[in-house]
Amino acid sequence: MNIAVIGLGYWGPNLVRNFLGNPNVTSVTICDKNTERLEAAARKFPGIKTETDVDKIYADPTITAVAIATPVYTHYNLARKALESGKHVIMEKPFTRTVQEAEDLITIAEHFGLTLMVDHTFLFTGAVQKMKEIIDEGKIGDVMYFDSVRANLGLFQPDVNVIWDLAPHDISILNYLVQARPIAVSATGMKHYYGMENIAYMTVFYDEHIIAHFHVNWLSPVKIRTICVGGSDKMIYYDDMQTSEKVRVYDKGVNLNSKEGEYDLRVQYRAGDMWAPQTSNKEALAEVAAHFIHCIKTGEKPICDGYAGRDVTAILEAAERSIKNSGQKVALPSSVSGLPAPERISSFIIEKV
Amino acid sequence: MNIAVIGLGYWGPNLVRNFLGNPNVTSVTICDKNTERLEAAARKFPGIKTETDVDKIYADPTITAVAIATPVYTHYNLARKALESGKHVIMEKPFTRTVQEAEDLITIAEHFGLTLMVDHTFLFTGAVQKMKEIIDEGKIGDVMYFDSVRANLGLFQPDVNVIWDLAPHDISILNYLVQARPIAVSATGMKHYYGMENIAYMTVFYDEHIIAHFHVNWLSPVKIRTICVGGSDKMIYYDDMQTSEKVRVYDKGVNLNSKEGEYDLRVQYRAGDMWAPQTSNKEALAEVAAHFIHCIKTGEKPICDGYAGRDVTAILEAAERSIKNSGQKVALPSSVSGLPAPERISSFIIEKV
Amino acid sequence: MNIAVIGLGYWGPNLVRNFLGNPNVTSVTICDKNTERLEAAARKFPGIKTETDVDKIYADPTITAVAIATPVYTHYNLARKALESGKHVIMEKPFTRTVQEAEDLITIAEHFGLTLMVDHTFLFTGAVQKMKEIIDEGKIGDVMYFDSVRANLGLFQPDVNVIWDLAPHDISILNYLVQARPIAVSATGMKHYYGMENIAYMTVFYDEHIIAHFHVNWLSPVKIRTICVGGSDKMIYYDDMQTSEKVRVYDKGVNLNSKEGEYDLRVQYRAGDMWAPQTSNKEALAEVAAHFIHCIKTGEKPICDGYAGRDVTAILEAAERSIKNSGQKVALPSSVSGLPAPERISSFIIEKV
Amino acid sequence: MNIAVIGLGYWGPNLVRNFLGNPNVTSVTICDKNTERLEAAARKFPGIKTETDVDKIYADPTITAVAIATPVYTHYNLARKALESGKHVIMEKPFTRTVQEAEDLITIAEHFGLTLMVDHTFLFTGAVQKMKEIIDEGKIGDVMYFDSVRANLGLFQPDVNVIWDLAPHDISILNYLVQARPIAVSATGMKHYYGMENIAYMTVFYDEHIIAHFHVNWLSPVKIRTICVGGSDKMIYYDDMQTSEKVRVYDKGVNLNSKEGEYDLRVQYRAGDMWAPQTSNKEALAEVAAHFIHCIKTGEKPICDGYAGRDVTAILEAAERSIKNSGQKVALPSSVSGLPAPERISSFIIEKV
Repeated sequence: MNIAVIGLGYWGPNLVRNFLGNPNVTSVTICDKNTERLEAAARKFPGIKTETDVDKIYADPTITAVAIATPVYTHYNLARKALESGKHVIMEKPFTRTVQEAEDLITIAEHFGLTLMVDHTFLFTGAVQKMKEIIDEGKIGDVMYFDSVRANLGLFQPDVNVIWDLAPHDISILNYLVQARPIAVSATGMKHYYGMENIAYMTVFYDEHIIAHFHVNWLSPVKIRTICVGGSDKMIYYDDMQTSEKVRVYDKGVNLNSKEGEYDLRVQYRAGDMWAPQTSNKEALAEVAAHFIHCIKTGEKPICDGYAGRDVTAILEAAERSIKNSGQKVALPSSVSGLPAPERISSFIIEKV
Repeated sequence: MNIAVIGLGYWGPNLVRNFLGNPNVTSVTICDKNTERLEAAARKFPGIKTETDVDKIYADPTITAVAIATPVYTHYNLARKALESGKHVIMEKPFTRTVQEAEDLITIAEHFGLTLMVDHTFLFTGAVQKMKEIIDEGKIGDVMYFDSVRANLGLFQPDVNVIWDLAPHDISILNYLVQARPIAVSATGMKHYYGMENIAYMTVFYDEHIIAHFHVNWLSPVKIRTICVGGSDKMIYYDDMQTSEKVRVYDKGVNLNSKEGEYDLRVQYRAGDMWAPQTSNKEALAEVAAHFIHCIKTGEKPICDGYAGRDVTAILEAAERSIKNSGQKVALPSSVSGLPAPERISSFIIEKV
Repeated sequence: MNIAVIGLGYWGPNLVRNFLGNPNVTSVTICDKNTERLEAAARKFPGIKTETDVDKIYADPTITAVAIATPVYTHYNLARKALESGKHVIMEKPFTRTVQEAEDLITIAEHFGLTLMVDHTFLFTGAVQKMKEIIDEGKIGDVMYFDSVRANLGLFQPDVNVIWDLAPHDISILNYLVQARPIAVSATGMKHYYGMENIAYMTVFYDEHIIAHFHVNWLSPVKIRTICVGGSDKMIYYDDMQTSEKVRVYDKGVNLNSKEGEYDLRVQYRAGDMWAPQTSNKEALAEVAAHFIHCIKTGEKPICDGYAGRDVTAILEAAERSIKNSGQKVALPSSVSGLPAPERISSFIIEKV
Repeated sequence: MNIAVIGLGYWGPNLVRNFLGNPNVTSVTICDKNTERLEAAARKFPGIKTETDVDKIYADPTITAVAIATPVYTHYNLARKALESGKHVIMEKPFTRTVQEAEDLITIAEHFGLTLMVDHTFLFTGAVQKMKEIIDEGKIGDVMYFDSVRANLGLFQPDVNVIWDLAPHDISILNYLVQARPIAVSATGMKHYYGMENIAYMTVFYDEHIIAHFHVNWLSPVKIRTICVGGSDKMIYYDDMQTSEKVRVYDKGVNLNSKEGEYDLRVQYRAGDMWAPQTSNKEALAEVAAHFIHCIKTGEKPICDGYAGRDVTAILEAAERSIKNSGQKVALPSSVSGLPAPERISSFIIEKV
C-alpha cells in the first residue's frame, strides 16, 4: 500500500516515520508547498518521494490513502478532494472547524465506501487502552465525573486557541471512555497576548449524573497532564507525566447510609488499596497507523472515525460560543452521541501486555 | 484577656488549643449545647471552663472576645448577639450565608468599635505569606491568572455544598494576593449523592486581563491542594501537599515579538531557573489567634476583617446562583472590592523566617 | 496501672501523652533531674505528678512500670535498678551501649519475671505491619536484599554518632521483617564536624543469599526514608515521606532461563502491576504503649523484647568497630539471632484496617 | 572526516546516529562480526557502509577515527590495534579491564600523538555541566560527601557485574566534579542469580574529609538515579528521573557553635532557599561526538581522556577485590589522581543555555 502524508509541520514527520515502519506500507510520498520543509523531511528519510503539488497526489492512482496533517482551516477542502479522488483519509485533530464540515466529509466517505479516520493518538496509548478495559469491565462502577488538566508552557498556535489545540486530546478520551451522550457545554477563558485564548476551562453536561471538566493552558510553569475518572465504586487517576505507573486505580469512594436530605448525614468513606496496572509501552502512533491500515483492508470502522471526530468538533464549537458569552450554556446538536459505536469498540482493545 | 470558643465540632478544639497557647490569654471558656462534645473537649483541656448556654457567655463581663465555630446558618445570629454584648468576634469561615448578613455585622461592629475578624487561616501560613511578599514586591509582574485545585476524599458536609465548604480558603487567598476587583462569576457543579454539590468549578472574571478559576472536589481519590499564580514575568506554583518547597517560583513566561493578529506569530518562551524560597513553619492558627488579639489591643483592622469575609461570601453566593443556571455569568455587587485595605496589609506580613 | 516516664527530652513527652491516652493507665509520674524540663512538661499535662529523684520512683510501690527515655549511656544503670526494684521496663532505643549490658538486663528481667521491652516504634506503624504481613504470607518469595536510607538535615546528637542515632529504627525493621540470622557487618563513615560520624553506610551479611544495607545521614538536604525489600517473586518499596501509598508492592523480578554461567544468558524481566495496600493510620506510639501494657498483664513477650534490642545493639557495636577499620568485616556474636521469636510474632500483627 | 563504529549492540547505533548528525563527519562505516546486527543497523541508516572484518577498517587510510562499542574484554586489543593503525579512538565505558591495560593504551596514544577518549556520556549532560559550573564557582563550599544511587530493574550483563556496568557513570561524574585524590575503596555486594554481583555498594575514601558512596542495583523495582553532593555551604541534589528541575541546589547546612567534643553541643541548622537552575537539553551523546572531533582537530585533550578512563578502571578493580573480601579496604594505585587535568576542564564547560 502506498501512502501520502500531506503537511510536514510538527506532526507530519512522525506520521511518515510510523507509516514507513509499518510492514503493509510499500512506499510513502510526502507533500508540502513549503519546499524547505519538504527538503528537511527528505533528508531524514532518504529515498522518500516528494511532491509540492497536492493535486498530483490525488491524481496518482497508485496512492491508496492520504494522511492530512495541515492547519485545521485547510482540512475540509483537502479531505473532500482526497475522498472524491478515491483515497482513504486519516486526518490530524481537530477534524474540522464545524460540525457541518465534519458531517459532509462523513457523508462523502460513506458514499464512496472509503475509510475516514481522525488521528486521536491518545486513544492508542497503553494508558488509555488500559483505562478503557477497566471501565468497560465495570470495575469502577458508574462514571460520575471526568476531570482533565492539560497544561504546559508554550506552543502558542497562530490560528487556533488553546481549546482547539489541546482539548481534542482530552475530549476524544472522554468520549472513548464514558458511554454517555453529552448535551451542553459551558466554557470560560482568557486571551492574554493576542486574539486567541491561551487559558480555558470547559464543563460538559450530560443527561445523567455525570460532569466532565477540562482545563487547558498554554501558560503553565509546570507541565501537567492528568485525567481523573471518578466512578461509583473506584476511581482512576491517570498522570501522563509519571515515568511509570501512569494509571492508578483507587478503591476509594463514599457510601451514604442515611436518607437523602436528612440532616444527620452518615457518609462513610472507603479508602482501600491502590492498584497500578502494567500498561503497554508501544508507540501510540504506530498503533494508529496499523489501525488505519487494518480498517482500509477489512472495511471495519475505525474507533476514531468521522463520527468521533464530529463529536469532538461539536464540543469545541460549543465551547468557543460559550467562552464568548462568559460561560453561558450552549446546547450540543442532538446528532452528537459522544459514543464510539459498540461494534467498533468490541473489535479493538489492543492485546494485553 | 478571657476568650470563649463557641462550637466544639471539628475546628473548635484547634481554636481552644491555640488561644490557650497565647501568652495574652488568661483563660478560655468553651461553649456547646452538645454536652458530649463539651465533655470530650474538657478532657483534652483539663481545668477549662465549660458552658452550655451561650447567653451566659454573652452576659459574662469578664469575657472580652468570642470565637464562633458553629455551622454557618447560625453565624449571623450568634455574631450579632456577641457584638451587641460588646464582645470582639472572630468567626469561622464561611463568614455568613449572604452579603446582606455580612454587611449588617460589619455595620454593627463598626458602630460599637469592636474587632470583627474572619478566620481565613490559610492567609497566615508561611506559604501564602511568602507568596504575598513575592507578588507585592513585583517579582512576578502583573498577575494574569490564578488557578486553584482543592480536592480530596470525603468530609461531605450536611448543610453546605463543596463550594461553601472548600472554596472560602482559596477565594480568601485570591483576594489577598491579587489586587484587582472581581466583577462576575460563572460556576458549574454536580450533586452525585444528595442535595448538595460535591464537585464544582468556578471562574471569577475581572475588568482587567485576569482570570481566576477554582476546582473544589469532595470525591477525589488523590488529595490535591495547588494554586498557580501566572504573572507576566514569573509564575508561582504552590503545592500544599509537598512536605518541603511548597512554594516554587518559575522564571518562565512568554515574549511576543510580532504584531497582534499577525499570522506568522513569533512567540518566544523563557524557561529559566526555578526558586523555592524558605517559608515559615509556624502553625497558622497560632498566628490567627495572635493577630486577632493584636487587633483587639491596638484597634487595627485585621487583614481578614468583615469586608474580606463579605467579599468571599459574595463570590460564594454568586457561584451558587450560577451553578443553578449551568454556568451563566452572575455579576458581583459593586460593593465587592476583592481587596484587603492597603493599611491592613502594610501592617502585616509576618516577619521573615 | 501507674507508670513513670524517666527523661523528658525530645521523646519523653510523647511517651507521657500516649500513656495518658491509654485506658489501662491510672496515672503517669514524670521524672527528670532538670527542673526546667520537668516544669515545661508539667504545663503541657496539668495535674501530672512530677519527681526529680529517680530513686523515689523506684521506691514507690504503687508504680508498676517505668519508661526510660534518657541518653543511652545511662540506660544500663537506670534499667538495672528499675528491674531490681520490681518495675517492668520499656527502654528507648538504642537499648544499651553493648551486647554485654543488654544480656545482663535480659537475665535480670527473666530472673524477676518482669517485662523488658525496647521501644522500636517503627515496628508498630501501619506500614511496617503491612510489610510484615505481606512477607510472612510469602507474597514476595524469598528475601534477597534489604536496602534502607534514612537521611535528613540535622539533629546532630552530642553523645552518639549517626549510626547509633538513626540505624536502630532500620535494623529493628530488618530483624522484624527478614527471618534470617545476620553474621557480620561492614561499615564506613565520615566525621565532618567533631568526633562523631554524621554520615555512614553499613552492610549486614548473612549465611544465605541475603544482603542488607543502610545509609544513615544527618547532613542531607532532602529528607529521605525509604526501605526496599527485594524478593524473588515481588518487591516492596516503602517510602515513609509519601503522604499516602507509603507501601508499594511491585510484581517485578527476573527469571533466568539458561544454565548458570552460560555466556549467552537469557534473563527475562517481569514488569507487572504495582499494588499499594491500605495501611493503618493509628499512631505507632499508642500501639507501643498498648503492647507494653498488654505484655505486662499477660506475661507475653513483647515483639521487641530484650533479645530484639540486644540484636540491634550487636549490629551497632560491630558497625562502629568496622568504621574504625575502613569497612573491614566484623563478625557478630553467635548469640545474635536477628529473629523475633515465632510465638511473639504470631500473637501480634495488629488487626487489619 | 570518516569515522567507523565498531560493535552494534545496545549503544553502537546511538553513536552512529550522532556521528551522522555531526557536520564534520563525511561518512560513517559500521562494523560487526554479527551480520544480523550489521544488517539491522544498515536498515536504520540507509546508504551506510558496512564491514564485518575489523582489520579492513584499520587498514583503510580514509578512516580517521574509530568508536569502539564492543564488550569490555575486547577493548584492549581493539584499541591497541586501532591506535597502532593511526586511528584516533573513542572507547565505550568501562575503558579497560585493568589499570595496566589503560596505561598501555595511554602510552601508545601519546607515542603516536593520537586522541584517546572514553565515552563518559553523563559528563556531557546539561545537569552534570551545570553541577560542575556551580561547584567550580565555589558556590557549595568544600565538598564533604558524594552519594550516588543508580538502580533499576534489569539489563543483567553476561560478562560484567553491576559495578562494571553501572558505576562507571557515577565514578566518572565523581572524578569530574570532586577535585580530590581518592586513595582507597571498600565495597560489598551480592550475587543472587549467577556468578556476577547484581547489587553492590562501594565507598571511596580520600585523604581529606570527603567520602563518596555508590549504590548500584540491577534488581530494583523503582528506577532511581540520584547524586547528592554535600558541600560545607550548600548541597546539590541531582535526580535524573525528574522530567524538569533535575538539579536542585539547597542553601542548607550546619553551623557548629561550640568547642569540639563539648557535651552541650550547639548545632545550628541553616535551612534556606532551594534553587533549580535551568539546564541544557542538548543530547549528551551529540556533545560527546562533537568534543571528540574537536579534540582530534585541535589536539586538545578530551575532558574524559585515557587518564580519566584509567582512574575509573582503578576504582572498579579495587571495588571488585574489596567485594571478594567482604568490604576490606583496598588501596588505589598512587598514579590515580581522580582529577581531570585543569587545562582540559578550563577549555570546556559547554556554553550556558
